[in-house]
Amino acid sequence: MQIEAIDFYYLSMPQVLDIGDGSQDALLVRVQAGEYVGWGECEAAPLVSIASLVCPMSHSACKPVQASVLGQELNDITDIDRIDNLVRENSMDLLQTDHTLSGIDMAMWDLMGKKLNTPVYQLLGYKKSYPKTPYASVLFGDTPQETLEKARRVRADGYKAAKFGWGPFGRGTVAEDEDQLHAAREGLDRDGILLVDVGTVWGDDVDRASQRLNAFQETRVTWVEEPFASGALDSYRTLASMSGDIKMAGGEGCHNYYMAQHMIDYAGLGFVQIDAGRIGGISVSKRVADYAHAKGVTYVNHTFTTHLALSASIQPYAGLEDDTICEYPVEPKSLALDMTQTHIERDDNGQIHLPEAPGLGIVPDLEALKKYLVEVELKINNQVIYQTPTLPATA
Amino acid sequence: MQIEAIDFYYLSMPQVLDIGDGSQDALLVRVQAGEYVGWGECEAAPLVSIASLVCPMSHSACKPVQASVLGQELNDITDIDRIDNLVRENSMDLLQTDHTLSGIDMAMWDLMGKKLNTPVYQLLGYKKSYPKTPYASVLFGDTPQETLEKARRVRADGYKAAKFGWGPFGRGTVAEDEDQLHAAREGLDRDGILLVDVGTVWGDDVDRASQRLNAFQETRVTWVEEPFASGALDSYRTLASMSGDIKMAGGEGCHNYYMAQHMIDYAGLGFVQIDAGRIGGISVSKRVADYAHAKGVTYVNHTFTTHLALSASIQPYAGLEDDTICEYPVEPKSLALDMTQTHIERDDNGQIHLPEAPGLGIVPDLEALKKYLVEVELKINNQVIYQTPTLPATA
Repeated sequence: MQIEAIDFYYLSMPQVLDIGDGSQDALLVRVQAGEYVGWGECEAAPLVSIASLVCPMSHSACKPVQASVLGQELNDITDIDRIDNLVRENSMDLLQTDHTLSGIDMAMWDLMGKKLNTPVYQLLGYKKSYPKTPYASVLFGDTPQETLEKARRVRADGYKAAKFGWGPFGRGTVAEDEDQLHAAREGLDRDGILLVDVGTVWGDDVDRASQRLNAFQETRVTWVEEPFASGALDSYRTLASMSGDIKMAGGEGCHNYYMAQHMIDYAGLGFVQIDAGRIGGISVSKRVADYAHAKGVTYVNHTFTTHLALSASIQPYAGLEDDTICEYPVEPKSLALDMTQTHIERDDNGQIHLPEAPGLGIVPDLEALKKYLVEVELKINNQVIYQTPTLPATA
Repeated sequence: MQIEAIDFYYLSMPQVLDIGDGSQDALLVRVQAGEYVGWGECEAAPLVSIASLVCPMSHSACKPVQASVLGQELNDITDIDRIDNLVRENSMDLLQTDHTLSGIDMAMWDLMGKKLNTPVYQLLGYKKSYPKTPYASVLFGDTPQETLEKARRVRADGYKAAKFGWGPFGRGTVAEDEDQLHAAREGLDRDGILLVDVGTVWGDDVDRASQRLNAFQETRVTWVEEPFASGALDSYRTLASMSGDIKMAGGEGCHNYYMAQHMIDYAGLGFVQIDAGRIGGISVSKRVADYAHAKGVTYVNHTFTTHLALSASIQPYAGLEDDTICEYPVEPKSLALDMTQTHIERDDNGQIHLPEAPGLGIVPDLEALKKYLVEVELKINNQVIYQTPTLPATA
């Protein structure tokens, strides 16, 4: 069968706030081939990914993404890899491509899973999907007191692990950061797993990072995530060599396999965090999971959005029994929860399981989405080249 | 003074062909602050960069590029770095950002050069701009005969060096590629400098590359450019270790400083090729030139478009006396030549010199551009967020 349609739906909260919360908008992707439909999601900047789907060609290696997908044969899972490679080749000089491809790749896996009546993780070669231990991914409070209260809430809500990130952390004084860290530790109790996300604010400045090492150690932080820009491999490696038991985590900024490989090979990471909505989808994520596993680096999903994205981001390492930690958004905006008919909920042990259902096992709630739909129109020389498609009647 | 306007103009040939020729469209950037105007250019996919300039915010680290530029103080060249860093921080999760920033950064340097009545290379800290030896950058012919004729023409036209790339090369049999290489060598005569651009078609497959090593050696190729995807560091390094006198060249795919640094540190490059229209502009390119120089790797510009882009791409290594080779587009489409009032022409020795004029020293020809202007309109929920601005009366 051939890929007959790729539809991109831009969804947004009525108001998008200037905070580090990636659940405020979404780009939902629908791929249709024959009688089958698959769904995926691209991370961030929906309008830009829409433009990259439909823009005019600049030259042979800078084509719109849809040029390499529409009309392609999709009969077998090997076709997904073939189509992904075509996209990367034909849109090599279009920087946005990897983010755009990500949602399409997810949708193709979802579609093939439905066709073959098999969960994606099995199509990827895993026999079994192991439960994951979700950590609550939350923003630092504006004050240590707020952070303390957030940590207590997370703990009371049954999470064994929590990651605090963004907000004021890393931007002020060392003392202020120490107060934030101690507040988070206090709120999580002695045995809670505390993870910290610095959100790259230190650029590549090892000194600023190392001034906080004492506090990271005192508060028994399991990982320090993105102390530096994704790609500042030397800074990561230097800090890793000084940090003892505290591991470096990073990788969400990687938008292709090679960048992740470099983080694993040269940055001294303990954890590699992959966003399937950025790196090119499930296919590339699985390659990274295999490589990380071979190199003794723990794979973790990066997900701050919907449960469709969550399912897609866990499939690539579902079968890695020892890689248990899993990012789980606990404070998403209503859009992110409303977007799907079902959700990946924690069980009585506080763990989560991928749906044992065909494809990604998470289906959009099209009725609920209507109110979030953003109408987009792109015109070139008075010709409409993209207009928000109508949501279909059924998912 | 404050940055009061950023205008993006999408220009295109009436017909864009499916060939590896990047001169078929352009995104011209105008930045205005106080009474000064600067011009720059972003590489490839103009519509996508326009979208990234004006798109709605997704979250605090995914803002439209203009949010970090409009209204900023631009009084000193250090402001350029500050603004660039703001853009990278505020648009970190918007993949297209680095390409978009590139043209803005160039325009800011051009503007400051005009304000300070100084060529950009001097603002970058070079005392002198050394002449460069341009190589003719042409596409392989569809047949060896065509390649032979192209090489003869280039030679007759006075070029001492030529780079052949794209077209059928690397996609067919080893024998076909050997024929192409021998044709190019024959056409350039014994003493012509022959460079080859493989355009990443071998992915990361060292075997396919190494099967051509004999022919590269027989035809005395100076560099093999992009045998692999940008980022396939291991494959580059492996081939470099097998290739004797033939050097690896690559780097045009780098869209930030770190990626270029990794190519220099880990890919065994002899030449690092930087596209100032992709990597974030002149500022990042200069950082790479400094690093390459310190590491004994030769810096080369990557330019396949206009003479405005050419000037911007040479400024970062203008003062490196020994880094003489320079990419020079010899078969650009009329758009690329019409775009500027003046051009960087070869002197009697076949060398080129940067204009000894304020800023980039190359001014757009706004009258000539009118016929190439593409009308773009972007609408979100029926509100126009971008419309092609009117070309000003004077550049």
